[in-house]
Amino acid sequence: MEIKITEKELKGTRPDDSSLGFGTIFTDHMFNMDYSPDKGWHNPRIEPFQNLSMSPATMTLHYGQSIFEGLKAYKNTNGEIQLFRARDNFIRFNRSAKGLCIPELDIDDAMEALKTLLRLEKDWIPETPGTSLYIRPTIIATDPFLGVRASHTYRFFIILSPVGAYYSGGFSPVKIWISKEHVRAVRGGVGEYKTAGNYAASLYASEKAKKEGYAQVLWLDGVELKYIEEVGAMNIFFVINDELATPSLNGSILPGITRDSVIKLGKKWGMKVSERKIAMDEVIEASKNGSLKEVFGSGTAAVISPVGEIRYGDEKIQIGDGKAGDIAVKFNSAITDIQYGKAEDSENWIEKV
Amino acid sequence: MEIKITEKELKGTRPDDSSLGFGTIFTDHMFNMDYSPDKGWHNPRIEPFQNLSMSPATMTLHYGQSIFEGLKAYKNTNGEIQLFRARDNFIRFNRSAKGLCIPELDIDDAMEALKTLLRLEKDWIPETPGTSLYIRPTIIATDPFLGVRASHTYRFFIILSPVGAYYSGGFSPVKIWISKEHVRAVRGGVGEYKTAGNYAASLYASEKAKKEGYAQVLWLDGVELKYIEEVGAMNIFFVINDELATPSLNGSILPGITRDSVIKLGKKWGMKVSERKIAMDEVIEASKNGSLKEVFGSGTAAVISPVGEIRYGDEKIQIGDGKAGDIAVKFNSAITDIQYGKAEDSENWIEKV
Repeated sequence: MEIKITEKELKGTRPDDSSLGFGTIFTDHMFNMDYSPDKGWHNPRIEPFQNLSMSPATMTLHYGQSIFEGLKAYKNTNGEIQLFRARDNFIRFNRSAKGLCIPELDIDDAMEALKTLLRLEKDWIPETPGTSLYIRPTIIATDPFLGVRASHTYRFFIILSPVGAYYSGGFSPVKIWISKEHVRAVRGGVGEYKTAGNYAASLYASEKAKKEGYAQVLWLDGVELKYIEEVGAMNIFFVINDELATPSLNGSILPGITRDSVIKLGKKWGMKVSERKIAMDEVIEASKNGSLKEVFGSGTAAVISPVGEIRYGDEKIQIGDGKAGDIAVKFNSAITDIQYGKAEDSENWIEKV
Repeated sequence: MEIKITEKELKGTRPDDSSLGFGTIFTDHMFNMDYSPDKGWHNPRIEPFQNLSMSPATMTLHYGQSIFEGLKAYKNTNGEIQLFRARDNFIRFNRSAKGLCIPELDIDDAMEALKTLLRLEKDWIPETPGTSLYIRPTIIATDPFLGVRASHTYRFFIILSPVGAYYSGGFSPVKIWISKEHVRAVRGGVGEYKTAGNYAASLYASEKAKKEGYAQVLWLDGVELKYIEEVGAMNIFFVINDELATPSLNGSILPGITRDSVIKLGKKWGMKVSERKIAMDEVIEASKNGSLKEVFGSGTAAVISPVGEIRYGDEKIQIGDGKAGDIAVKFNSAITDIQYGKAEDSENWIEKV
């Protein structure tokens, strides 16, 4: 694949690391590639970051045929750029593509596109511990057509955003809220794909949770409203006695790459790791009898997010003593140490750019 | 509300009525209005139809926070512009807005916007029987931000597309296919709102149906995969003995305005109309014992769509003799006669522009 590069004339400057938030600042360039039935994926190019110009009839706006990924590039102590399991993100991207009737990418081409872009934008990768360059590969349906069908044309783009440390105030537990009424996804639907509509479907309950003082929604299964699924922005783990349990991938849960990393490391460390159905009733019971030791989320943004409280109807389940649990801390350190090159890449998760 | 109008200098021409398809040709102008937290909905304006310019980080592209409506303007035999239940569309639009955490519109303002636009574009409304001007009001989330929350800013636009007669080859029954596996929506989700993600979620099964030679998917409920819901682009009615039955609005079915018109007319005509749970097993049984007289869909695009075959696993349920049933024909004539001003507007459904 030959990538045409058009460099921006007046380069921007990366803000001070301490001022970085999440998802508001973008780098100088973006990668673009188009799809049409006759040419397939074609015209790979890196251009100045710029607005998209699209007909108001563009299908993605009306019918939500779009998918995305979220991953990060890190700078190690030698100033090298490290990607964490990026290939796995593109494998998942292709699974999402298939589920949404979008033509798949060549994964080697996608990796090359990303690496070429990162090399050009290397000065945009922050260096302070905890900071990173957030990467957002996206595909949108671009036919200007009103009528429900899969689009014939698509745009694939990658944009980059330098992001700050997720826990600016330290690694403190979050409070999450269970909806007894709202459903994010159901088996047979698109919940396991990273597609736009899943996030739109989560907004109403999320706003409710925020009003009640909770950071995020913990979703139950769409069929029985009984089994725990995920938190929308992260997967979830429970430490019950000596078992590390997480809901099994049932078709309505996003197969998180951090989730998979936790499972692999946990097994390697000799922990009893289970992917299984976890009923909310079991969590309540475990909390009451003292066997619920820790709860934490896993995701690209925060890596590990300790959970300090789960609200379920009138019940408030308190977990731990207001501080992150030992197991959450251990996973967070192990994964971030690999990401930033402070620990040996024992699992072959790092690809240097 | 004062609408600023900027007219296009070089007007386009409406194609010949006989060449009109659906959703590919747009008129000269569009209506635009913006929302921000400090100004509310502001800057209502009619401008030349033009591309939207938006950051690749625009929230609607990533998180699918968008809603739309579909309705039509017709020309009656006196050349007057007729809207069919347009206010009901905007009421439903606001319900969708609420469900997707989008700020609601003032319905009078929305109606005024639409009427002003239609007056300007009156020459774009085709006049041949069966043709009409399709109207697509849309709201999209416009914050350039990567992170899941409701957007702070929005764009509301209305675009118009002259469309041909839906049944170019006559009013012939369609074949529909039931998925025993795929699910469009579930109670507690967003299935009852006209939001982008619902359509993306329908693509995979729809492509499967097409490959099998079926026009559309008939969706079953997401909980038990047992009860009939809707066809994605239309609601569905069954004539079983002397009963006209349609699935009740359970939270995962779009509350169709044509559906409501059929129910109201049916009741007025003294028919036994039921909104209730309809199990697929009941339909199979009714087909076997001869009590299943007709099946038809209802929606804005086709008004009434007779169904000639339902495929369910290995079973093919044949309905009627390959021609549209009497009841389907009666509803289609009654509703289109009101829309085109050929019959008295007994229900007060028409608003002249």
